[in-house]
Amino acid sequence: MRAYDVIKNKRDGKKLTQTEIQFMIKGFVDGSIPDYQMAALLMAVYFKGMDEEETYWLTDCMRTSGDIIALEGIEGVTVDKHSTGGVGDKTSLVLGPVLASLGLKVAKMSGRGLGHTGGTIDKLESIKGFSCELTTEQFIDAVNSTGVVIVGQTGNLVPADKKIYALRDVTATVDSIPLIAASIMSKKLAVANKVLVLDVKVGSGAFMKNLEDARELARLMVKIGTQAGRKVTAVLSNMDEPLGEMIGNAVEVKEAIDTLRNQGPESFTRLIKTLAAQALVMADKVTAEEAEKKVEQVIADKTAYNKFLEMVKIQGGDVSMIEDYSKLPTARQTVELKSDKDGFVKEIHCEEIGLAAMMLGAGRETKDSVIDMAVGLKLIKHVGDEVKSGDTIAEIFVNPDLDNSKAIQRLKDAISISPEKVTAQPLILDIIS
Amino acid sequence: MRAYDVIKNKRDGKKLTQTEIQFMIKGFVDGSIPDYQMAALLMAVYFKGMDEEETYWLTDCMRTSGDIIALEGIEGVTVDKHSTGGVGDKTSLVLGPVLASLGLKVAKMSGRGLGHTGGTIDKLESIKGFSCELTTEQFIDAVNSTGVVIVGQTGNLVPADKKIYALRDVTATVDSIPLIAASIMSKKLAVANKVLVLDVKVGSGAFMKNLEDARELARLMVKIGTQAGRKVTAVLSNMDEPLGEMIGNAVEVKEAIDTLRNQGPESFTRLIKTLAAQALVMADKVTAEEAEKKVEQVIADKTAYNKFLEMVKIQGGDVSMIEDYSKLPTARQTVELKSDKDGFVKEIHCEEIGLAAMMLGAGRETKDSVIDMAVGLKLIKHVGDEVKSGDTIAEIFVNPDLDNSKAIQRLKDAISISPEKVTAQPLILDIIS
Repeated sequence: MRAYDVIKNKRDGKKLTQTEIQFMIKGFVDGSIPDYQMAALLMAVYFKGMDEEETYWLTDCMRTSGDIIALEGIEGVTVDKHSTGGVGDKTSLVLGPVLASLGLKVAKMSGRGLGHTGGTIDKLESIKGFSCELTTEQFIDAVNSTGVVIVGQTGNLVPADKKIYALRDVTATVDSIPLIAASIMSKKLAVANKVLVLDVKVGSGAFMKNLEDARELARLMVKIGTQAGRKVTAVLSNMDEPLGEMIGNAVEVKEAIDTLRNQGPESFTRLIKTLAAQALVMADKVTAEEAEKKVEQVIADKTAYNKFLEMVKIQGGDVSMIEDYSKLPTARQTVELKSDKDGFVKEIHCEEIGLAAMMLGAGRETKDSVIDMAVGLKLIKHVGDEVKSGDTIAEIFVNPDLDNSKAIQRLKDAISISPEKVTAQPLILDIIS
Repeated sequence: MRAYDVIKNKRDGKKLTQTEIQFMIKGFVDGSIPDYQMAALLMAVYFKGMDEEETYWLTDCMRTSGDIIALEGIEGVTVDKHSTGGVGDKTSLVLGPVLASLGLKVAKMSGRGLGHTGGTIDKLESIKGFSCELTTEQFIDAVNSTGVVIVGQTGNLVPADKKIYALRDVTATVDSIPLIAASIMSKKLAVANKVLVLDVKVGSGAFMKNLEDARELARLMVKIGTQAGRKVTAVLSNMDEPLGEMIGNAVEVKEAIDTLRNQGPESFTRLIKTLAAQALVMADKVTAEEAEKKVEQVIADKTAYNKFLEMVKIQGGDVSMIEDYSKLPTARQTVELKSDKDGFVKEIHCEEIGLAAMMLGAGRETKDSVIDMAVGLKLIKHVGDEVKSGDTIAEIFVNPDLDNSKAIQRLKDAISISPEKVTAQPLILDIIS
């Protein structure tokens, strides 16, 4: 077999065989197939696509390219959530404790932030003493005792994806639905969770700009997961603006705590309830209605909030900082961003908001950047809201030692105000299982 | 400017700017743009194409990537020919002397063969003493005195094409009309010939399998050349079978001599007359009819043949080998390939014939292979000819010390015989200027 022929077959719109896909992925990972041939194949896939079967073979081949995390020793139904990425996405902080309160096991592996996206691990580290580095034994024990643990990724998980993604990133081949599906699902299926709920973001701030593409991606991922023997449901949610109100690190933890105390923003709470209910439907075979009631209850009666305290404690975090979150890192100065015209909020550009937050110090420009846990922002106005000139659109939490003028300007530019009335999209756009 | 954005623009079907094309080509040649980004761009060009202007910019940028050969000191109208490649293509050996006989100057740079294609330089070296390595001064002097000289390529001519072609060859991005046009024309325009006649081959044995694609390529090349201030005409000729009857080295020189003596195969003679007449039309502003008469005359009265002798002499070759070509290397054994069925010759697959000839020893499998000048073959039957079982289809000139059974079988498999009558395509399919 020659890489040339595999590239040519895909270029000519032929369906690749499992052997051809394995040959390319294994060869690329072991270095016998050079990156220029993989780049040509990726661009051919961009144009000619891959069908469900090819995408499954690709996913499976990538999945087995490194370590497999079997989650052995965890009792009960293990559940994982994946978001296709957004700004202000503190979902894991709330969803984990909620699911654990419902009797599911959440052995969550999360990442750090880079560029415009924040990372769950970074946010949690704004809690004094909180450690995301547990040994495998500690990890399993902690999951069995509290039901929810959030750690950083360890080991050599899906090296094929790391290498392919790095190449896609510089060859304009990221925006391909089968490649996105294989990238996400190879990582998810490398960890042996039984239930998986996918949060597929749709809108100007997401990978998937329109509902049709999002549905295609969701269907493909559900199909791949199901074929691999997992229970998978995808929730399609709107991302025409950041999720919730807070963007930053400590401020997002505060919003998570509010939500666990049943005092969170309505839209974010709605997403949590939907994702948790879908997970419960898959795990317990209850109806969506019953599931949602159960979810509402564990939030209302503080079971989920207490789970969060338990998790913070078992991971070495200072629980008093949660009980009184004014003890969490807090910015010394708040700048109010005011509207200079009348109208309606049309769009809050997620990537630009994320990059502005990064410039404030809330995110990493490079892998070695140090995060300021206190800075960030709160969106006061949302898409569809009416604003008058002089109204506060956002509160910006800054480090006054820095010149934040560029970041503030960027924030302002990211929020567009239209003279015409704007109707916000519903938060939950579809559920695919 | 970032390579990523150029790739993305082409991927999205946008027209690239001259600056973007220059940025990519210069960067690729100097190593600042890695081959995986160039591979992705090439595949995007494969799918999205390039318009005439983009192709011109690409050609010009490649053309100036290395040495430019100004042909300074040559008096008169310099003319060059380019063939898109074929098997049995000894055109330069005949066309050069014919054009010189008509008062044009042919300062021809040719290549060596590799794989299924033979090389003009290799063929000429079957003449004892013939040297294709002249100093620039010798070269210019010889052109001025005889009107025709054929040398090997020297210097660092179009390094961009060498590097890009090597990449296209392993990434399945060769079959792209703008990329083919830019590759050919960048090399042709790097040498300052005033008149250029392009021999675009069409058919099963050519790059261009159908007339439509060939026309598109021809038009594009004529446009590029004209924009660069040259006179260019393209002749589209049929390549459903090798050109003429002989395939090899010394045997092709013999066929060239026959043709210069007005005793060559009809189809090959027809092609020579057409190409020469088109060159003369461009150089002398005569009509095609007048031009063809002049061409016929210099062949009929042996002027062209004598030019060939002059060229061989000035390049150090043994003229007696031309005057009596039985002195040229001759194979010790001839094997007759016979038909095992009745029918009509449908196709003589050029690439397979070329590879079979290479296996006999007439060509190079790798750059270091040594050629046997004597071996080769003569096609007795041509496309459209009726054959009876037992008829000789070809004579194969072999070195009996070798086991030639595989090569002979390959030759046989390359010739398909159909029970139905086959009508051969005309040799000259179109002329585009």
